[in-house]
Amino acid sequence: MVLTKESSIKKMEKGTIVTPAGFQASGMHTGVKRKRNDLGMIYCDVPASAAALYTQNIIQAAPLHVTKESIAEEGKLQAVIVNSGNANACTGKQGKKDAYTMRRSAAEQLSLPEHTVAVSSTGVIGLDMPMDYIIPNIKNLHLAMDEKAAAAFNESILTTDTGSKSACHQAVIDGQTVTMAGSAKGSGMIEPNMGTMLAFVTTDAAIESDMLHLALKEVTAKTFNCITVDGDTSTNDMVLTMASGKAENESLTPAHDDWETFTGLLQHTCEDLAKMIARDGEGATKLIEVEVNGANDDDEAVKAAKTIVGSSLVKTAVYGADPNWGRIIAAVGRSGVNADAGTIDVSLGSIPLMENSQPLAFSETEASDYLMNDDIIITVNLNVGNGCGKAWGCDLTYDYVRINASYRT
Amino acid sequence: MVLTKESSIKKMEKGTIVTPAGFQASGMHTGVKRKRNDLGMIYCDVPASAAALYTQNIIQAAPLHVTKESIAEEGKLQAVIVNSGNANACTGKQGKKDAYTMRRSAAEQLSLPEHTVAVSSTGVIGLDMPMDYIIPNIKNLHLAMDEKAAAAFNESILTTDTGSKSACHQAVIDGQTVTMAGSAKGSGMIEPNMGTMLAFVTTDAAIESDMLHLALKEVTAKTFNCITVDGDTSTNDMVLTMASGKAENESLTPAHDDWETFTGLLQHTCEDLAKMIARDGEGATKLIEVEVNGANDDDEAVKAAKTIVGSSLVKTAVYGADPNWGRIIAAVGRSGVNADAGTIDVSLGSIPLMENSQPLAFSETEASDYLMNDDIIITVNLNVGNGCGKAWGCDLTYDYVRINASYRT
Repeated sequence: MVLTKESSIKKMEKGTIVTPAGFQASGMHTGVKRKRNDLGMIYCDVPASAAALYTQNIIQAAPLHVTKESIAEEGKLQAVIVNSGNANACTGKQGKKDAYTMRRSAAEQLSLPEHTVAVSSTGVIGLDMPMDYIIPNIKNLHLAMDEKAAAAFNESILTTDTGSKSACHQAVIDGQTVTMAGSAKGSGMIEPNMGTMLAFVTTDAAIESDMLHLALKEVTAKTFNCITVDGDTSTNDMVLTMASGKAENESLTPAHDDWETFTGLLQHTCEDLAKMIARDGEGATKLIEVEVNGANDDDEAVKAAKTIVGSSLVKTAVYGADPNWGRIIAAVGRSGVNADAGTIDVSLGSIPLMENSQPLAFSETEASDYLMNDDIIITVNLNVGNGCGKAWGCDLTYDYVRINASYRT
Repeated sequence: MVLTKESSIKKMEKGTIVTPAGFQASGMHTGVKRKRNDLGMIYCDVPASAAALYTQNIIQAAPLHVTKESIAEEGKLQAVIVNSGNANACTGKQGKKDAYTMRRSAAEQLSLPEHTVAVSSTGVIGLDMPMDYIIPNIKNLHLAMDEKAAAAFNESILTTDTGSKSACHQAVIDGQTVTMAGSAKGSGMIEPNMGTMLAFVTTDAAIESDMLHLALKEVTAKTFNCITVDGDTSTNDMVLTMASGKAENESLTPAHDDWETFTGLLQHTCEDLAKMIARDGEGATKLIEVEVNGANDDDEAVKAAKTIVGSSLVKTAVYGADPNWGRIIAAVGRSGVNADAGTIDVSLGSIPLMENSQPLAFSETEASDYLMNDDIIITVNLNVGNGCGKAWGCDLTYDYVRINASYRT
């Protein structure tokens, strides 16, 4: 058996955002949210190469502008200050001022240049930031590199998430052990491209920020941008990576022998987080994975997969354990990708439902039983080309309505 | 006061699909559905000019192919046979055969050439048609031109609709009274372009089928294609118009002095039906109307309006009477239309919530009270151009989930 580079990536069950060398974290409750932590920080003891991607919504919250400015300066970050409970979005001039104040306060506390600090916020849109809670508490964020500190940080970024989301992987690059870890929040408004989600990825790999940006862009397209909860996108969301370089590998570029190991590490970490976000969609009880094969190209495959996994009718059918493949094929039909109305195959798990666009005889009971699982896999083959892609989402439930009809009250 | 042509259009509260001269209708229960009528017919005692528009889903049900063939022959129809309970979609060769059999049976019963009969079906996808219920009952459809017959037809096209939908208007064209009436079904899967909806429009105006097609296309773009319930589109849906010519006006073309009166009649009829469909979206408790002004052009205005009214987060906020304008502006931001992040105004009814993209002080109680109404109007001004447009939808409720998680069981 030949070991592929992929297989050299090891999942670290107990790894956290502070497992990669150089990182510390903290999280605390200031009172912006009722109970859970609402203020957090990641810190790197050296200037880390940084790269970030942002929501494609034209309305972008104040913290995004400030973070962009920070990274633009020299592509390095040493800290991220994050709050949840208030998104600091649509808050006009005051919002910008507040985001700068958060950055300055964190920088002063850590004795860092302001442009090495990033700011991130998530929560309700359009209310002024509760600065009285946030600013005086920045000095109370006690950084540490243990599991408890990481857990406190993970909690501090959540909104309606039912639990925190983190992942950690290791691989050998240049004979050095490289660790990568991520912490994310998701829940409602999750839609490509990056509706209300925050993800922070730390690694001790040595890599320049432009190369890190390249890898992040490639991997985000296949992970975070392939999840959808309700088709809405947020004003706030970002994926931010920091690389401390402490693993002391030769600086990574696509020409490096282990470039694919590195992007594989990033892919594993981001895919784990993306699936956790999809599974924890507001009110969700199930993770739905849709795999589309035989599309014109990979982009069309992903587009079809996202349309299916985002269909309210597919989502409610999965919730109701109803093997209503008609809704799956109707979603393919409106997705706008090239397909032939006579060549589509559909399977639910390993149960073929449809071949060449014609329904097959299948056991309703068996199919319905399959839909009782926590993980549902829908496979579609368009049979028009070689493109393939995946997307992830969740079922649509009573609880989605409950949570969103009363989010602010 | 100058009377515009618009104002000469009179709503006929008691008008029905058989009020325009020349039309008869019928509806009955055959057993495909449990209780309500499931087989219906519209008949015209002369060959009527006909035009139809169909779902843009690439998967189109068998009846659509048959209806297209009928109309293509000479642009005339004398009858439409419709069933509900089974969509005859994704039913392969058997489905096509069944649709042709429905057409032939109806034509034989009425002693008409087959190509003057249209076929339409709505209901569950992917099950073979219950022909044993439908075919033997075609002879039991007793056509009449009274209110009762129209009501029986209206019921026969419904699926999960809570009630039937009809509208009727009159205007004077060439000194002749022209009547137009429509009957529609909607409910789930309502999305531009024409997700699960059927609409049948009758008129006694004299107009050739190509001109009728022109008017229908223009009006559908501003009415039926501007409603959304859940973003899904169906395989089956169509808007079909028949014009008997019995009003004896001079045949209508865009050059006719009263062309705009005619398209106005069609606009009023279709807009009434479209709003009824939106209001009766599955599980809906409220009609939401979104008006977007100041867009680059009318198409962009409609696109932004549809994105807002289709947002699950906006829909749940309206259901929960939560004046969460952040969700409205986030929807604008992801709609893909040209907008300036600093110039957007948002109002809820007559309550301004946001000006130049900055939140205004407003009474939460007043706004929340407004959201308790049955009709909610959201107005957005992008302030970048002169384009304007409207879209209609409904709130997203527990009942939407209940209905769709258990549709087939």
